[in-house]
Amino acid sequence: MSGRSVSEGGSIPRSREPRRTGPKPCYTVILVDEILSDLFSYVRFASVSGDSRYKSEVNACADWLTARVERAGLEAKKYPTAGHPIVVARSRPQKNRKTVLIYGHYDVQPPDPLELWESPPFEPTVKDGRVVARGSADNKGQLLPHLFGVERAINQNNLPVNIIFVVEGEEESGSDNLEPFLKEHRDALQCDIAVISDSGMIAPGVPTLLYGTRGVVCLEIRLGGPNVDLHSGIFGGLVANPANALARLVSSLQTADGKIAIPGFYERVRPVEPWERELWAGLPKNDNDWLEMTGSPVLFGEAGFSSLERIWARPTMDVNGFVSGYSGEGPKTILPSKASAKISFRLVPDQDPDEIRALIREHLNKTCPTSVRLEIVDHHQGRPYLVRSDSPFALAAKRALEATFGKPLALVRAGGTLPVLQVLKDVLRVDTLLIGLEWMDCRVHSPNENFPIENLHLGVSMNQNLLTEIASFSPKARMK
Amino acid sequence: MSGRSVSEGGSIPRSREPRRTGPKPCYTVILVDEILSDLFSYVRFASVSGDSRYKSEVNACADWLTARVERAGLEAKKYPTAGHPIVVARSRPQKNRKTVLIYGHYDVQPPDPLELWESPPFEPTVKDGRVVARGSADNKGQLLPHLFGVERAINQNNLPVNIIFVVEGEEESGSDNLEPFLKEHRDALQCDIAVISDSGMIAPGVPTLLYGTRGVVCLEIRLGGPNVDLHSGIFGGLVANPANALARLVSSLQTADGKIAIPGFYERVRPVEPWERELWAGLPKNDNDWLEMTGSPVLFGEAGFSSLERIWARPTMDVNGFVSGYSGEGPKTILPSKASAKISFRLVPDQDPDEIRALIREHLNKTCPTSVRLEIVDHHQGRPYLVRSDSPFALAAKRALEATFGKPLALVRAGGTLPVLQVLKDVLRVDTLLIGLEWMDCRVHSPNENFPIENLHLGVSMNQNLLTEIASFSPKARMK
Repeated sequence: MSGRSVSEGGSIPRSREPRRTGPKPCYTVILVDEILSDLFSYVRFASVSGDSRYKSEVNACADWLTARVERAGLEAKKYPTAGHPIVVARSRPQKNRKTVLIYGHYDVQPPDPLELWESPPFEPTVKDGRVVARGSADNKGQLLPHLFGVERAINQNNLPVNIIFVVEGEEESGSDNLEPFLKEHRDALQCDIAVISDSGMIAPGVPTLLYGTRGVVCLEIRLGGPNVDLHSGIFGGLVANPANALARLVSSLQTADGKIAIPGFYERVRPVEPWERELWAGLPKNDNDWLEMTGSPVLFGEAGFSSLERIWARPTMDVNGFVSGYSGEGPKTILPSKASAKISFRLVPDQDPDEIRALIREHLNKTCPTSVRLEIVDHHQGRPYLVRSDSPFALAAKRALEATFGKPLALVRAGGTLPVLQVLKDVLRVDTLLIGLEWMDCRVHSPNENFPIENLHLGVSMNQNLLTEIASFSPKARMK
Repeated sequence: MSGRSVSEGGSIPRSREPRRTGPKPCYTVILVDEILSDLFSYVRFASVSGDSRYKSEVNACADWLTARVERAGLEAKKYPTAGHPIVVARSRPQKNRKTVLIYGHYDVQPPDPLELWESPPFEPTVKDGRVVARGSADNKGQLLPHLFGVERAINQNNLPVNIIFVVEGEEESGSDNLEPFLKEHRDALQCDIAVISDSGMIAPGVPTLLYGTRGVVCLEIRLGGPNVDLHSGIFGGLVANPANALARLVSSLQTADGKIAIPGFYERVRPVEPWERELWAGLPKNDNDWLEMTGSPVLFGEAGFSSLERIWARPTMDVNGFVSGYSGEGPKTILPSKASAKISFRLVPDQDPDEIRALIREHLNKTCPTSVRLEIVDHHQGRPYLVRSDSPFALAAKRALEATFGKPLALVRAGGTLPVLQVLKDVLRVDTLLIGLEWMDCRVHSPNENFPIENLHLGVSMNQNLLTEIASFSPKARMK
């Protein structure tokens, strides 16, 4: 982590603005304008990491970001990787201060389907108090407030902690180069806590701390039968139909009432704690909201658990896709030669992905009839994540969030999987505070992605309150 | 059925040959040459009925055929329909003779995939004693011997029955206009028996009479859940996954050992007769042949029945295709908004397609959980067909076939469905003799379709023997 400055060249679409010095009378108005203006610049880069046609845009975005964090008074460097660069920026280290690592990503999802956007995805528009653009919520609009908070503290000469920003460019396409990078720079990235704003608030205005996520095991089941698709009249009844067999095999994974039917699957599942049940029951989420949001005829899942318990703290099995035989219009009376299903299992603490994958494989191998050929293809996996919600860091975050938003904290978990959490834990031995700023209707990964302008502003205060709170408790308290 | 002559114009690629008069010393050699030459002309028409780009080729083929049957001494006419024309030709009716209707089709399947043909599909080639071309077996090479047999009898002035040829141009695309046509011309098409050569021989050189086919009921099950594909992490466990539900619903249709699990499904299934079991066990077909032909790891089907019994005389259920969610490479962790399965049931005597469809619908409606939306889309259906194999006509066919091929007759059924049989039965009240001439490896509907030249020749004798045998038994015998 050298102190080298930003690399030369690159696409920096805005000229530098004069450095602010000291307090200003119209502070708030100017701040909102500045951060909004910067977010506009930031989202104009079509930094789609998963599509090589956008490579130069991704790189230009990294250059812009590197220049921007440098302007905030941080030492910045753009590190090349085997994929897209990682931007690292740090404050001048001072002893006897805690170090906070703020992680984010400057890459975005593809904008498709384009025809569903009401305004061009990379031309930011303000609508109903929100910035509409790809990347506005995920993750550009959530990172900028941290940068502005740190910049303001530096300008006022009162940054209370050491800060390291790590902003990668491959989060939307697998983060393949993050772990090797962290390992290579392990010593220089030592820190006391990581902070990520890349998740959601349980409701607008309700400060939200995320203390657990689910894990995942993905795989594909492929069944093979005849060499070619056969006529279902001439051959039907002679050999096993791989699609028929797939239906049976997949349905053997789950009972009709939504429980997973693989022996041993629930052995390490940590029960939902009574305090969690009570807490979540009081959150501003009701089943009608979910029904309206999904459009499903009814809610459905494992009996004995509320909706939030089911998506946050219970494992699930979902077929992600079927492929077999004829998929055109009308009928085609064939006995298909093969059939496959892509499946994702969501895991909860303390399930282990390797162990669960072995159980799934054992079940499939045992259950699959010999009349078809079974191939199991492993796809990615990730561990579930759970931290104490009453650690000193968590309590510092609680105080900072409640002070910022003026409402009691919502302690939540998430149903998705954030592999970066485990990477930070494994490589840097550090826990992460997940304090997301997006709302449920921010359409992350979807057309018309948006981010509330008020959260740009509140996010700056949140960052400042958080860093102050983290600085204020004694190192001893950290060991509780 | 007027006596109008063939319509003018059209594509007739061969000039007329001199009418043969009286016996010839090199009779056999000349005959083979002639029929082979005519088959070459006939298959050069790319008469693909299912693809409108071939419309003029289909029509030109109908013109050629009309001219050819007229030249054989028959009254011929090309009848326009809402689709492709139907060619009808008839001998001059004589009283106190039985009337035989010979059905065939001059249209063919598309030649795709073109890259798998070893020679151009519409440029006939002789290889290993076979004519290789699209339509050579299905159905051009099977119809021509009947025409040559009839022509020879007319030339020799000893045609023993009245003959009506009905050759349609839409068999490969649904025969939509055949039934209305037969209804319109019901009186003119009255006959005693129908003959169709559009099926296979159990083995080369083994004369084969097909006395039963299976029926079919096709449908599509569509399950709907959320409005859009959902993130399997954020939403998994909240609402029912239509793909998971589809696997369960489809597997509820069949037991693990291959029996259909729909209540009442087997009620009208006619048991395989002991004489059929015995007969079929002696046919030159063994399980190794089937294994090699399909490439499946093992043969599989309903317990307690032989392979032939399962495909000829037992009902089956085959998923023809699944469509749901993500079908690209790698994983995509979604909970799909919908899932569908195309399914064909093959029926056997005396199952009724309407009744079976109602049972299937009842089962699906009862079994499908309310957590997903069920839509059942009806596709086509067809009745199973079974005639006595010891009727006077069947016995006449047996004598003719055994005389032609010099071997005992194989009495078989077929697993597929031939809707024309039911149409002939319903409209003309007539049974059909199914005496196919293609071999199992003739690659019908596939690249490198072919037809053995020896069966062109034997087919002419077969036609003559058959007409003689049909003429020879007394009308009284028909009533047995």
